[in-house]
Amino acid sequence: MKSYQHQVQYYETDKMQCTHHSNYIRFMEEARLDFMEQVGWGYDKMEEEGIISPVVNVTCDFKKITTYPDVIDIDVKVIGLTPARLSLGYTMTVKGEIVCEGTSQHCFLDENGRPVSLKKRFPDFYRLLEEEKNE
Amino acid sequence: MKSYQHQVQYYETDKMQCTHHSNYIRFMEEARLDFMEQVGWGYDKMEEEGIISPVVNVTCDFKKITTYPDVIDIDVKVIGLTPARLSLGYTMTVKGEIVCEGTSQHCFLDENGRPVSLKKRFPDFYRLLEEEKNE
Amino acid sequence: MKSYQHQVQYYETDKMQCTHHSNYIRFMEEARLDFMEQVGWGYDKMEEEGIISPVVNVTCDFKKITTYPDVIDIDVKVIGLTPARLSLGYTMTVKGEIVCEGTSQHCFLDENGRPVSLKKRFPDFYRLLEEEKNE
Amino acid sequence: MKSYQHQVQYYETDKMQCTHHSNYIRFMEEARLDFMEQVGWGYDKMEEEGIISPVVNVTCDFKKITTYPDVIDIDVKVIGLTPARLSLGYTMTVKGEIVCEGTSQHCFLDENGRPVSLKKRFPDFYRLLEEEKNE
Repeated sequence: MKSYQHQVQYYETDKMQCTHHSNYIRFMEEARLDFMEQVGWGYDKMEEEGIISPVVNVTCDFKKITTYPDVIDIDVKVIGLTPARLSLGYTMTVKGEIVCEGTSQHCFLDENGRPVSLKKRFPDFYRLLEEEKNE
Repeated sequence: MKSYQHQVQYYETDKMQCTHHSNYIRFMEEARLDFMEQVGWGYDKMEEEGIISPVVNVTCDFKKITTYPDVIDIDVKVIGLTPARLSLGYTMTVKGEIVCEGTSQHCFLDENGRPVSLKKRFPDFYRLLEEEKNE
Repeated sequence: MKSYQHQVQYYETDKMQCTHHSNYIRFMEEARLDFMEQVGWGYDKMEEEGIISPVVNVTCDFKKITTYPDVIDIDVKVIGLTPARLSLGYTMTVKGEIVCEGTSQHCFLDENGRPVSLKKRFPDFYRLLEEEKNE
Repeated sequence: MKSYQHQVQYYETDKMQCTHHSNYIRFMEEARLDFMEQVGWGYDKMEEEGIISPVVNVTCDFKKITTYPDVIDIDVKVIGLTPARLSLGYTMTVKGEIVCEGTSQHCFLDENGRPVSLKKRFPDFYRLLEEEKNE
């Protein structure tokens, strides 16, 4: 899996002269959607299947400040997987140094807002995620 | 019409220690939706009628910087009105001093993305806007 | 302590028709700065004392979706306190129903980026936070 | 000059299922800073010289909606130049089709907030901008 890169933008900084902490949650989303694309389950495919995938929770540990125009490398890993839930871990580095670590947990809902068993309904995708988890 | 108030938030500031200029476009939206609510054409009513109202253009003149925790008063005026287009003007002040002036232009589309004549379809609303314009 | 109120803005929603999850981290900041103001340690006082207070981590559990124009009530509680760290908990409700729960942890640094012992340097503020914690 | 590319992010969309209009102002900033970098007057150099360059005004005409995950190509042109003011024009396209056109105007201030004559103080930079203007 290729790292995702986000260059911090000027408008993402705040009065303390560094990247506002809320933006890391957005960088996680960018990296997650890129990760999904890489495992062949991009947004288009999700939509076609009528699946939405709300964020159930996020955590974020801020280790070092970043600022414009830093380039953040983001690595995504599958850290938890059940038929109903997917947990991802994010490691963000600037020039090899960790600046932030985060996690997010997701469920999968069908057109009617009902939980979907990934394992049953999308066995191929589930197997891919399992492989990623075991790496 | 009552002024709309927006307190600048910490996360709306940038590295230059002041409110990032893009946020004023958002403040204009807040004030506009509040204005629509005040003339009795709030978001709910719009939605019920199946109308969407995309922004056609915006302009924004930045006069003085603001920053957290300034409170900005925003006055909205109807500056142009045709059956197909609505133009609004915004005056933003902090303690009576102008900090920003903006305009926005809007069209109105029906469920199928076709232009709607406000005057024909919503004569009451159109009349209200005309009255506001002439004030 | 008074609840803080945030009305979800149109620009805070996303394609899934609800408040984008990253914005709750921003609402937490709004409520936190309001809380600090209420205990008499607002931003101005902090700045005068040359103290900055970076966010060390955040967690956020999303319970129910919200959307424009919901009004979210946010209650802030002190959930942890040591001379070097402050932990806050946030309960967000819409019409009495919990929509989101979050936490944030903060350290305090002086002009030179060195950790400050709140207890030693600002005993009054520390005592106030302790009282809040025990409530 | 190379076009700047911005991929619309999920969190940049809104309830109307498309990119929120305020974000185009941010894309303009991204493209502008990249343009400055390309003419050899990047942020670092600006800062070293103690110059800040506030936005005086912006205009934005929205031609076609975009949404996640569209990739927007942004071309920046010098459309006006005096010793005290720089005006830039932006053309944003998706797959060759114009989606948005914008302008921004900038002044240049020194460490004390006093206007700087670009032509006098940075003749090389001024000449570069003039050449860009005449292209």
